[in-house]
Amino acid sequence: MAAPFRHRTRVRFNECDPQGVVFYANYLMYFDVAMTEFWREAFGGYAEMIGDGTDAMVAEAGIRYLAPARFDDEIDLVVSVIRVGTTSAVVQVAVERAGDGERLVEGHLRHVFVDTASYRKREIPPHAREGLTRYLVDPAREGEPDPARG
Amino acid sequence: MAAPFRHRTRVRFNECDPQGVVFYANYLMYFDVAMTEFWREAFGGYAEMIGDGTDAMVAEAGIRYLAPARFDDEIDLVVSVIRVGTTSAVVQVAVERAGDGERLVEGHLRHVFVDTASYRKREIPPHAREGLTRYLVDPAREGEPDPARG
Amino acid sequence: MAAPFRHRTRVRFNECDPQGVVFYANYLMYFDVAMTEFWREAFGGYAEMIGDGTDAMVAEAGIRYLAPARFDDEIDLVVSVIRVGTTSAVVQVAVERAGDGERLVEGHLRHVFVDTASYRKREIPPHAREGLTRYLVDPAREGEPDPARG
Amino acid sequence: MAAPFRHRTRVRFNECDPQGVVFYANYLMYFDVAMTEFWREAFGGYAEMIGDGTDAMVAEAGIRYLAPARFDDEIDLVVSVIRVGTTSAVVQVAVERAGDGERLVEGHLRHVFVDTASYRKREIPPHAREGLTRYLVDPAREGEPDPARG
Repeated sequence: MAAPFRHRTRVRFNECDPQGVVFYANYLMYFDVAMTEFWREAFGGYAEMIGDGTDAMVAEAGIRYLAPARFDDEIDLVVSVIRVGTTSAVVQVAVERAGDGERLVEGHLRHVFVDTASYRKREIPPHAREGLTRYLVDPAREGEPDPARG
Repeated sequence: MAAPFRHRTRVRFNECDPQGVVFYANYLMYFDVAMTEFWREAFGGYAEMIGDGTDAMVAEAGIRYLAPARFDDEIDLVVSVIRVGTTSAVVQVAVERAGDGERLVEGHLRHVFVDTASYRKREIPPHAREGLTRYLVDPAREGEPDPARG
Repeated sequence: MAAPFRHRTRVRFNECDPQGVVFYANYLMYFDVAMTEFWREAFGGYAEMIGDGTDAMVAEAGIRYLAPARFDDEIDLVVSVIRVGTTSAVVQVAVERAGDGERLVEGHLRHVFVDTASYRKREIPPHAREGLTRYLVDPAREGEPDPARG
Repeated sequence: MAAPFRHRTRVRFNECDPQGVVFYANYLMYFDVAMTEFWREAFGGYAEMIGDGTDAMVAEAGIRYLAPARFDDEIDLVVSVIRVGTTSAVVQVAVERAGDGERLVEGHLRHVFVDTASYRKREIPPHAREGLTRYLVDPAREGEPDPARG
């Protein structure tokens, strides 16, 4: 198992709301930034996957807010893989404040892999599976059956 | 118990991504629009709550994506209340396509009520509690203990 | 000449920044909302135009900020047409606070009409031209030559 | 005169619209990212300016769209200073595609400096003036009178 993937970014002014903290929906946008960079690292990136005729749709997201990030904070997006099924995968994403490493947010995304033409579920392409599996927290969960839905 | 609260809005072009559908983080932004309108209806609105020295922070969110909304779709944001605790409350929010009523997304938000000065947890103000309770799906869950966290 | 087109909307929490006012880039997003509703009224809407094989790209925007809009303000988006050229058109958009009518922002957008397949400039379709012309502030500017660029 | 300030960033998926390109209002958000990094470089940053009791409000923006940026493109935000007045300053911002350096967007922002308490105009603080002046394209425009408005 690889160490979790990490990507650093900085909170933009427009991402914060009148409470002076990052608007809560924007953390899910950070999760997406994390996935773009994680996929690039794990198997060559989103464009390569699309080029192979496979797209990924988010089927489920969950998120817990522990402490706020503020304008101009540097934050680390931390990704690890929880489950790699036949047609779907679950990643865990955390947001940590750079510097003191305080965990600000933690959550997960479940992606379903689909054919770019039909939008029907399809098996995770082999090279993507291989890349995701390297970041699997518990290797026993590779190839675990997908849930009924999604 | 009141019928669920409903608020209609329309998908904006910028809320959609290159897949031609609403970007998944934006549904959480719709949830926030739903809360603004729901709170207005249930107890007079966010500004009134702030004026009373109470703010609400989102502590947790979850969301399942069932089908996509697209540019210019009219959508209904549907809110009901799942739990009203001492210092926190949980709402269920769904997004339905207007017209055929197809459910596109469903999820929940857990809000914690805090003092606007100290940001410490405080009891839900009585008039907010009363308003939320009217939309409680299962009235037995009014006054249910808060979970340890949040 | 028709009266300017008006569309009312309400400022969302996430559209405001830590200064407590609408983030300045978001007014350009409001301009886009205004265009969607204006085009619907003027000639049947964006989807109809796309269906005819024509798309519109923004080539230029300008905006002056006079006073801030704040969370939960109702605002009116006010559109009139300044110029209808052969392949491009210029609209003037203003944002006014509902209630007192104070002008908060004013600006313009220049759209270039293009073929949806080739993305080359093409003439404004006749029914769109007719619709836009009804909102022209100065009818003498219908059919005015396009500038060299765009 | 210093060379223009440059900051590199990467286009996020959610910043693109169903046309597959960056939504036009988002370039103004990029301009704001550029200002944050430019101010950090030029005079220590926004937080330092706020700490001195001075805030900056955008009074005017203009933008021309030359070619589209797309998801995952690396882009350079390029800032130079056009005018440093008594209470306001104008910067020119361009967006260039990294790699081939193609200019995608160019525009300007006019900021007015205000007192953080009263929101009245105030003189640009000396260290900010000094920092901005280093990036002035035409040094003759330092200390040029402010226009009547803003």
